[in-house]
Amino acid sequence: MYAGAVQDLIDELGALPGVGPKGASRIAFHILNSPQADVERLISALGEVKRRVRFCERCFNIAEGPLCDICSDARRDQSLICVVEEPKDVVAIERTREYRGLYHVLGGAIDPIGGIGPDDLHIRELLGRLADGTVKEVIIATDPNIEGEATATYLARQLRALEIPVTRLASGLPVGGDLEYADEITLSRALEGRRSL
Amino acid sequence: MYAGAVQDLIDELGALPGVGPKGASRIAFHILNSPQADVERLISALGEVKRRVRFCERCFNIAEGPLCDICSDARRDQSLICVVEEPKDVVAIERTREYRGLYHVLGGAIDPIGGIGPDDLHIRELLGRLADGTVKEVIIATDPNIEGEATATYLARQLRALEIPVTRLASGLPVGGDLEYADEITLSRALEGRRSL
Repeated sequence: MYAGAVQDLIDELGALPGVGPKGASRIAFHILNSPQADVERLISALGEVKRRVRFCERCFNIAEGPLCDICSDARRDQSLICVVEEPKDVVAIERTREYRGLYHVLGGAIDPIGGIGPDDLHIRELLGRLADGTVKEVIIATDPNIEGEATATYLARQLRALEIPVTRLASGLPVGGDLEYADEITLSRALEGRRSL
Repeated sequence: MYAGAVQDLIDELGALPGVGPKGASRIAFHILNSPQADVERLISALGEVKRRVRFCERCFNIAEGPLCDICSDARRDQSLICVVEEPKDVVAIERTREYRGLYHVLGGAIDPIGGIGPDDLHIRELLGRLADGTVKEVIIATDPNIEGEATATYLARQLRALEIPVTRLASGLPVGGDLEYADEITLSRALEGRRSL
């Protein structure tokens, strides 16, 4: 155990995701040895995020105004909505520079074990956005794991009544990967989804 | 790239030791979703460490007053000084509950490649503490790596003139370890330091 203030900081840092007790004490000593100005920048960045960042009123992506940068951009294709679990998924898809439509961030995935049901996600708001007929396709881009698949299946069923085409990102072998090392499920998905050349 | 404040926070977090870009964005989103009170506790812990914590005037361990808890404790054996590289080494040795003497924190180890020479460490202050004849033994507990060994050798040479016994922590096989997996250097140190039973 360290003296009071250092141990307090180690405790707070250790509560962050992915930071274990060793990492927390390493960061605490780094802070102790850092110039005051560096620590003030970190403190202010923490405060600013809580003060300035909120969620987009339409798509629940992160935003610094009522709407996020993407929803405020009139050049984006208003007839396409890509449904993702988290704001970081928006960033991942934006990085491809292949998608010009809008997003809808669910805020997670259906996970009965973790106690997350459809009502805990922004699904009602998604249905609301589809009501006026502007949207011509919904692309479901939830994670390719059990929770993400369950969420995709649930959404597809909900959207069937609206008669809007619903698609799902392809599952298969990662580009640059090695067939030999692919797990069985990925490989069987890749077989299922095979395309003619 | 995220919106301004989130990216700023990711940049600041990513500059901390052991936090990569993925870890930084994971922590940033955790902060975004945390209750305001939790983030304020983290912010205040960061500020308090810089405000309250300083280094002990005598041994350079962390302290919240002029002297650290150990130097202020009259029950500690004033005739023994254990020399370590960093305050976290003090904590490691305290955890054994085997040592009742004082410490001296060098603030690092001699590392010519990293540009750290003897004058960058608190060696002069250590020699000052040994001048009045109270100290009867100096235990050198620098890390068992190249820099720590170089520092130990340098210190032993400096202290020879003072005719105070200087000892070094034993190197050898870690307790609970497996001989088969020990590296050659550790194993040859263990052989060298073998003791009669």
